Amino acid sequence: MTDQIEQDDNGVGIVKTHHFTFDRLALENGDIFGPITIAYETYGTLNKEKSNAILVLHALTGDAHLAGIHEGQNNTGWWDSMVGPGRAFDTNKYFIICSNVLGGCKGSTGPSSINPETGNPYALDFPLISIWDIVDAQKLLIDHLGIEKLLSVVGGSMGGMQTLAWLVKYSDRICSAIPIATSTKHSPQQIAFNEVGRQAVMADSHWKSGHYYGGPFPDKGLAVARMIGHITYMSDLSMVEKFGRRKTNDAQPFKFTADFEVEGYLRYRGDNFVKRFDANSYLYITKAMDNFDAAHGRPLQEVFEQIKAKLLVISFKSDWLYPAYQSREIVRALKLVGTDVTYCEVDSTYGHDAFLLEIHEETHLIGHFLKKIFMDHEGTDGYAI
Amino acid sequence: MTDQIEQDDNGVGIVKTHHFTFDRLALENGDIFGPITIAYETYGTLNKEKSNAILVLHALTGDAHLAGIHEGQNNTGWWDSMVGPGRAFDTNKYFIICSNVLGGCKGSTGPSSINPETGNPYALDFPLISIWDIVDAQKLLIDHLGIEKLLSVVGGSMGGMQTLAWLVKYSDRICSAIPIATSTKHSPQQIAFNEVGRQAVMADSHWKSGHYYGGPFPDKGLAVARMIGHITYMSDLSMVEKFGRRKTNDAQPFKFTADFEVEGYLRYRGDNFVKRFDANSYLYITKAMDNFDAAHGRPLQEVFEQIKAKLLVISFKSDWLYPAYQSREIVRALKLVGTDVTYCEVDSTYGHDAFLLEIHEETHLIGHFLKKIFMDHEGTDGYAI
Repeated sequence: MTDQIEQDDNGVGIVKTHHFTFDRLALENGDIFGPITIAYETYGTLNKEKSNAILVLHALTGDAHLAGIHEGQNNTGWWDSMVGPGRAFDTNKYFIICSNVLGGCKGSTGPSSINPETGNPYALDFPLISIWDIVDAQKLLIDHLGIEKLLSVVGGSMGGMQTLAWLVKYSDRICSAIPIATSTKHSPQQIAFNEVGRQAVMADSHWKSGHYYGGPFPDKGLAVARMIGHITYMSDLSMVEKFGRRKTNDAQPFKFTADFEVEGYLRYRGDNFVKRFDANSYLYITKAMDNFDAAHGRPLQEVFEQIKAKLLVISFKSDWLYPAYQSREIVRALKLVGTDVTYCEVDSTYGHDAFLLEIHEETHLIGHFLKKIFMDHEGTDGYAI
Repeated sequence: MTDQIEQDDNGVGIVKTHHFTFDRLALENGDIFGPITIAYETYGTLNKEKSNAILVLHALTGDAHLAGIHEGQNNTGWWDSMVGPGRAFDTNKYFIICSNVLGGCKGSTGPSSINPETGNPYALDFPLISIWDIVDAQKLLIDHLGIEKLLSVVGGSMGGMQTLAWLVKYSDRICSAIPIATSTKHSPQQIAFNEVGRQAVMADSHWKSGHYYGGPFPDKGLAVARMIGHITYMSDLSMVEKFGRRKTNDAQPFKFTADFEVEGYLRYRGDNFVKRFDANSYLYITKAMDNFDAAHGRPLQEVFEQIKAKLLVISFKSDWLYPAYQSREIVRALKLVGTDVTYCEVDSTYGHDAFLLEIHEETHLIGHFLKKIFMDHEGTDGYAI
């Protein structure tokens, strides 16, 4: 096999979600919590040296279904165009793992899971989890898969926060890392947007202090939270390019109908989101993001000092939710402690969404970076496997 | 009296709100609507030539109470520090008028007013109003006060939109205009933020399609709308300066309490807002803003061509809700048709809030501009009155 592999338009094809269950986890807040199930998917083949594994970490509303399609369904995974034969995460070379976060609602244990002690969903009896807890659960999954050292850990947005947590806590378990469009800690503006989303959920009379399972769900509040999110994921310019001030043809007699296309789009995205996401998971995960501080209040250099991994840091010029200056702070601290770091500020108009949309640029950047890491590590281009 | 007047720290002192009622108004949508009451306040004295009148226009949630205090109350008007003897709007020289917008809830006719035909509040039977209708009602007030020509029309944010509407529709009635931190039409991002606010209100089960008067009000939804607004009124940097990541001392056992000061601030502002504002007014007024287009879809130069007034356009560098480029578009079009326009982009970190907070800078800019306009117009510095 040569480097000039043809991209397979079918990607990874049909895939399945797996589940890994363990008894308990010591949480950052001191609680011992369990049992915990982590939903995950893998693509490609783990080589016999177990040296080609890459962990991809999802953002706030993502899940384990990174790529391919599930039997009998149509929708591809959330970063499908990045994963497959000849793609950035080349399944001819690498073994890709993606798991749903602890606290999530897509197969991993979260507030909508059944509490074995009561037989009812945890709801707000679910413990307050942190990004560190999320990463601890992932680390147990990696242990379970028998992988001593990950070739890379990669993620955008909240996935980037997890990437940073891996770097700080499990530096000896990773050869490289790619934090994308992320931050070591949320600014007050980032906290504020998450808080308004939480308030929108909790303002919904169906929320009932989290005990809505079995009754109507707080769909309207959660949809509002998602709509706020979508505005922050786009840029001023990308909204002009996508919608302008074009009107809809929605001529309902009701006065506050969606007159503008941008209004229709937000309503559509909000309404769709509530079909696939649990409102309590939204509260817990956004809170974990807001509380995260990769440096635990210390200077960033101090916690970065022990990092041996090589880094590729990516940000996007029009991203105002996770502005490029937050990535530059990461790069500056890494440089100060002598880490081998490459920084790329991609000239995209897509805003924060760019990390999911700038596939061509990311394929180039990530593909080459991983190839070099693998070569340095293995002395081979990986196609021998 | 000389120009070196001492600023009176008491400002305009005790003031009263007045009311002007007229029978009907032909709305932009073709409806004939009335009767209409407009609440307004005035400060200073109208000179005998009636040449010293300045109309100040309020933003989304403002009201007629621009300056001073009401008998027995403590809170000063929304732009108090700009109005009074020796202040930017010097009441020793000028006669200042501020009215609550049509559709509002602070004394002017709006959706919470009683529909004389039914004896109940209009609620959603209130007609869809526009910025043009709001300005038409103001023009009738100015007629009623016997003022042929306003020395200036001034407003920030939505007040700036009204200022632009005055310029386009009643150019022959004004000597000068000061649009601040505004836009000739909302971008999709500006529409999107308003739309999410409306969705938050309408998601509240107490909203009941607008028929909540007499029952519980949709306070939670309206508070969420206001919280979204407050984020957009500040800047990333001003939030860092004001809150950082400081925690509150709020040690309630509830998991989703306000941990960070920025969360506590937003909740406080949201909760306070619902005590003073009507949810349906919020829907109607934001919709009027979103639908506004100063140029009616034509090139801006065409509608600006007949403007004889002199302009001072002000924007703020950190304002990302009404970005400076929107003000520069106004200035560019005015320059193209030869209008006498001065532009100032103030180097503030306050974001959109700057138009209410940068008092020192605005006092300087607006004070000098008005003085020059009055001198040019009257051949006197105004202190003869």
